[in-house]
Amino acid sequence: MTDEPLSVGMLGYGFMGDAHANALRSLPQFFPDAPAVSLDVLVGRDETAAREAADRLGFDRVATDWRDAIDDVDVFYNLGPNDVHVEPSIAALEEDVHVLCEKPLAPTVEAAERMADAAAASDAVAATGFNYRFVPAVQYAKQLIEDGALGEIRHARFRYLQDWLVDADAPWTWRMDAESAGSGALGDLGAHSFDLARFLVGDVDAVSGHRETFVEERVPEGESEPRSVTVDDAFAAHAEFANGAMGTFEATRYATGRKNGHTFEIDGSEGALRFDLERLNELEVRRGDGRGFETVLVTDDDDPYGEHWWPAGHVLGWEHTFVHENSEFLGAAAGGGEYAPDFADGLAVQRLLDAVERSDDRREWVTV
Amino acid sequence: MTDEPLSVGMLGYGFMGDAHANALRSLPQFFPDAPAVSLDVLVGRDETAAREAADRLGFDRVATDWRDAIDDVDVFYNLGPNDVHVEPSIAALEEDVHVLCEKPLAPTVEAAERMADAAAASDAVAATGFNYRFVPAVQYAKQLIEDGALGEIRHARFRYLQDWLVDADAPWTWRMDAESAGSGALGDLGAHSFDLARFLVGDVDAVSGHRETFVEERVPEGESEPRSVTVDDAFAAHAEFANGAMGTFEATRYATGRKNGHTFEIDGSEGALRFDLERLNELEVRRGDGRGFETVLVTDDDDPYGEHWWPAGHVLGWEHTFVHENSEFLGAAAGGGEYAPDFADGLAVQRLLDAVERSDDRREWVTV
Amino acid sequence: MTDEPLSVGMLGYGFMGDAHANALRSLPQFFPDAPAVSLDVLVGRDETAAREAADRLGFDRVATDWRDAIDDVDVFYNLGPNDVHVEPSIAALEEDVHVLCEKPLAPTVEAAERMADAAAASDAVAATGFNYRFVPAVQYAKQLIEDGALGEIRHARFRYLQDWLVDADAPWTWRMDAESAGSGALGDLGAHSFDLARFLVGDVDAVSGHRETFVEERVPEGESEPRSVTVDDAFAAHAEFANGAMGTFEATRYATGRKNGHTFEIDGSEGALRFDLERLNELEVRRGDGRGFETVLVTDDDDPYGEHWWPAGHVLGWEHTFVHENSEFLGAAAGGGEYAPDFADGLAVQRLLDAVERSDDRREWVTV
Amino acid sequence: MTDEPLSVGMLGYGFMGDAHANALRSLPQFFPDAPAVSLDVLVGRDETAAREAADRLGFDRVATDWRDAIDDVDVFYNLGPNDVHVEPSIAALEEDVHVLCEKPLAPTVEAAERMADAAAASDAVAATGFNYRFVPAVQYAKQLIEDGALGEIRHARFRYLQDWLVDADAPWTWRMDAESAGSGALGDLGAHSFDLARFLVGDVDAVSGHRETFVEERVPEGESEPRSVTVDDAFAAHAEFANGAMGTFEATRYATGRKNGHTFEIDGSEGALRFDLERLNELEVRRGDGRGFETVLVTDDDDPYGEHWWPAGHVLGWEHTFVHENSEFLGAAAGGGEYAPDFADGLAVQRLLDAVERSDDRREWVTV
Repeated sequence: MTDEPLSVGMLGYGFMGDAHANALRSLPQFFPDAPAVSLDVLVGRDETAAREAADRLGFDRVATDWRDAIDDVDVFYNLGPNDVHVEPSIAALEEDVHVLCEKPLAPTVEAAERMADAAAASDAVAATGFNYRFVPAVQYAKQLIEDGALGEIRHARFRYLQDWLVDADAPWTWRMDAESAGSGALGDLGAHSFDLARFLVGDVDAVSGHRETFVEERVPEGESEPRSVTVDDAFAAHAEFANGAMGTFEATRYATGRKNGHTFEIDGSEGALRFDLERLNELEVRRGDGRGFETVLVTDDDDPYGEHWWPAGHVLGWEHTFVHENSEFLGAAAGGGEYAPDFADGLAVQRLLDAVERSDDRREWVTV
Repeated sequence: MTDEPLSVGMLGYGFMGDAHANALRSLPQFFPDAPAVSLDVLVGRDETAAREAADRLGFDRVATDWRDAIDDVDVFYNLGPNDVHVEPSIAALEEDVHVLCEKPLAPTVEAAERMADAAAASDAVAATGFNYRFVPAVQYAKQLIEDGALGEIRHARFRYLQDWLVDADAPWTWRMDAESAGSGALGDLGAHSFDLARFLVGDVDAVSGHRETFVEERVPEGESEPRSVTVDDAFAAHAEFANGAMGTFEATRYATGRKNGHTFEIDGSEGALRFDLERLNELEVRRGDGRGFETVLVTDDDDPYGEHWWPAGHVLGWEHTFVHENSEFLGAAAGGGEYAPDFADGLAVQRLLDAVERSDDRREWVTV
Repeated sequence: MTDEPLSVGMLGYGFMGDAHANALRSLPQFFPDAPAVSLDVLVGRDETAAREAADRLGFDRVATDWRDAIDDVDVFYNLGPNDVHVEPSIAALEEDVHVLCEKPLAPTVEAAERMADAAAASDAVAATGFNYRFVPAVQYAKQLIEDGALGEIRHARFRYLQDWLVDADAPWTWRMDAESAGSGALGDLGAHSFDLARFLVGDVDAVSGHRETFVEERVPEGESEPRSVTVDDAFAAHAEFANGAMGTFEATRYATGRKNGHTFEIDGSEGALRFDLERLNELEVRRGDGRGFETVLVTDDDDPYGEHWWPAGHVLGWEHTFVHENSEFLGAAAGGGEYAPDFADGLAVQRLLDAVERSDDRREWVTV
Repeated sequence: MTDEPLSVGMLGYGFMGDAHANALRSLPQFFPDAPAVSLDVLVGRDETAAREAADRLGFDRVATDWRDAIDDVDVFYNLGPNDVHVEPSIAALEEDVHVLCEKPLAPTVEAAERMADAAAASDAVAATGFNYRFVPAVQYAKQLIEDGALGEIRHARFRYLQDWLVDADAPWTWRMDAESAGSGALGDLGAHSFDLARFLVGDVDAVSGHRETFVEERVPEGESEPRSVTVDDAFAAHAEFANGAMGTFEATRYATGRKNGHTFEIDGSEGALRFDLERLNELEVRRGDGRGFETVLVTDDDDPYGEHWWPAGHVLGWEHTFVHENSEFLGAAAGGGEYAPDFADGLAVQRLLDAVERSDDRREWVTV
């Protein structure tokens, strides 16, 4: 541990900025062993807006060019849109500044490879923001799997179901534009599923994927001319894991009635698991000596991160995944330890996203 | 309606024989308008065993050759294994004997085509035994969809999860042999899913399928030498419906903790549905003006088949699907009406099963 | 076992007549070891209606006076309204005719005592129709408790929630009249709860009860003058079990959204159970070495009555409780064995219903 | 709104201190309109421990006597044990210092009355810490009830089930001592239920209550002699609401498998609600035009407090109730507005707790 607080620079102050700033502020009370940080500089193109956000989130100063931030900080949070992930992250790593970059890591496999190379060459920690690994119930699932409670894994089913585009008259936004957003449900939601699949089940060898765009054009807010939707509204895939398990994946923005339905089911020869992010404190476990699924509330003191929080049964929320993630990330940054998911994990997911697209283009299986 | 009872011949007295005999015996009390039947002849190769079953199920006599049965009966139930479906069904139809044949209809598409041709040429009713159409909650789902409660359908997910082969030491049986059984989870379970998909969502245009056999050989009960498992243990597929919806399918005998987990989820632009055969009295409905899924107990008097049974909330079981199916089938047989699912439906499902196999062989999408 | 079929007389052919006739007809196929029966005589005051029912249910003849039936039969089903339970049942028992009488046993404790005395003095079996003991999941619960899986029982919560009187404009019927019906939700629904409580937890020593009538008068169908509702719409009670456990009870006809919500929760020092009649194939079990409740589908071959029915996961319905009940009852009748719940059990429940009423009248605890 | 931050004094730094300190720190980011606060002084008897907590929670200084804190602050949080609630709260109110006092308000009705009198005589806001009113799903329930979505309320069932005393060998603590703790499950858990009952359903007129202590003595940690358990382990009650609804209440520390099972069910003539604190983001709603219960995820932007947090479906946790509570409390303190639940509400609950105890002592109903 360093004695000085780690100085933090953060690019972006939207949804992810809120989540990470809240996490950083929560650490001293709940994770007193986590390294101290000082919120040094917030980066944003619009200086006025950035200054307002900096006041709200507690940053000392703002910068409009990320280059001005990187030199002065120990830790850099790259929370900008996908197409701003590459250069600032590589630049920071070249200065041995620790980086946490949001997902998906990059717009292309090639860019993600450059980022992973920069991470490999750097002494700094390079984290990809797959925060759902840090749900206590997901960590508990990981422990069960590593302890052999599932035996040989046969099936893994991942779904990420949202419904915010169900209305065909909802306005066009940049998220429906391939240039800005890279992909749609695939990169936004599927990236999380693929990361959890790799974390819990293992590497994927081959994939058959399928994308769909249900509403081909939409009208931007306040405009009258429609614009094309150039990303996928939904995707589905089946996959072969290296360990022989069958995988199925699906994500959509058209699942009426589901707000954040990130679910998985993992079936093994000795047991099985089920999870739903909308009930993130729970893991359903079919144990080897059991008969059905047991609903476990993963909030006990000896559950993952349990001792840091409230008594058993006093449930956590979505934002707590970021507290855990930042505790691990900053611990690794300050202490020189290992951290996962790193940029190599981010790259591996990028290759899976790319494989789904290639498979869909060719209408056949592709190896990853 | 005829005045004379319809005389019934039945080939097979295993699981399906029990289910249909129970249904026929229940009709007079609960469906008094259904045609009367007399249980004339039970067909089985082993005369002693057949006679014992005939006594238990209430048949007048037995025959060891199905040809002896067909001539004398008005209605023929073909409940034998897959490879006995073809000739007796065609022979019966040629005599204008009504036929209810269990699913999947035939071992091959070609055989199913011959059966469908025979049905088309006959004045008799030819029914395929897709009994799950007759779950009241499934009928209620159908009504909601036809009434437009779901709007445009975007997604359909079908799963059929069982766990009776999870144990790698479970013995080899004829169900694991391609010659006798045709296919494994695909034909046994997936056939039901594909039929419900066609019933509720519509025709499937193209499919990408994947089969897996997890345990390559097993030892038959009482033997010491292993035999090969030549059918699939599980399959997964994604599909394009003619109406533009995306479909995903999966069935397995390795889903630890699931006994009869036949589930579907259908998401539309206005609403959504969820169903699980293990809770077959319930349908989860996301209505257009609702916010989440509503758990509807489909047992009211004005629900499908509701007035025939107990007061609301007094739930039905799996076997009741056969009572409903037989009520409809015999009504059509006696009254000359239409019946679905017929042999054309059975053929359509056969083509889907075949498409999954072809797709898996070629590792690419195929049109159906 | 007798060689001759047991001849059956049945008084009443409404809801309960349907349930028992269906059960008797199902026994030969599914419980081949159960004694054979012949449906001899159906008793009803209205000869035409009785004859129609006899045809539908399969009875040989009808009688308009129960005295004419009792002499000729081996087994007598008393399925009439509450106030017809006493004399025919006692008369039958005096002739050593086996009796199954529906619940609650009698209109008063004094009448129930006379019935229990007659049963004690008779060589015949005297059964009270508490069919919910014969739900497989309830039998499984009983086994778990007897095997000590719950340890010392601390809490038992019984609810029976229906909603068919929620509408204040629903018409007046005889079920709302104290003279005809005895009591309301208390006797109709609470009687089942108290029987299950005695079966699973043990005797109740003392009770504090409370009744409520929400809608004081209603208009009979087709009339214009309202009549008074003289029974309870709902009741609640807390209780002390002899073994030290705390009990709470509640039943109502005003629980909007619940059709047949007969539920219990039993908490012990080592484990806990939860059950809901609307999902009667399931028992939720918190095991000693578990963390949460496990949803067990009680349909395996080695589950109670499991081997008589379909493969695991092919669920049963409400009516199957009557098949099990009749199998046990007729087995005891033919074989001279013990049977529970008998008239002593019916009397014990009657005393509990009476205790709730006395407690409510006095606004204080009463001993049972 | 004041321009100067409100200076805060806090007595107690255990569980509740953590919860309120976290809430105060979260306000600026998520409730920017809430008054600013400065964490001035933390009060604790053990100066070293208090100083350590002050560092962790961010307080400027510590005091060992609450009298030293009250003079200097605008707002006083009384988070000490029950027997320290009375004098400091009254002293603060006499100085027009705003007070938030944890529940239950006081050890006796008489003491609670003195506190309510002091609140009535003061210009300051006096809040009782019933934080569960501030669960968004509970607020949404309140809205539905006020909008008439339930019609006339017939039934209300409140349960608060925990299991931390199930083990009869768990050590004795001060919470099992009547002198220190006042009561057991009744005051600790039941107080929350009674407050929600008053909030959602209305005033309670009369009560029949029952307490139980299952394990009469326990051995304190590190000692060998057992001490008596002088509080209740569990209680049950039924109640009459002023509006004619029937209420039932139960709380226990012996409900194996339940960690924080604070549940309610409210049945009305037009609709019904169900809630479980272990799934606090959800409300189950039976709407007037519905058929079953709809599971509503109360996280939309226009849900209570929804716009302050994350996008729909990104769930909140237990601690967020304190953020909402403090936002409302400080808003009222700074702006001179009304606040509920106030000390009059705390007193009303105290009277209910007392009524349960009196009823149990006399074994009869008591009016509140």
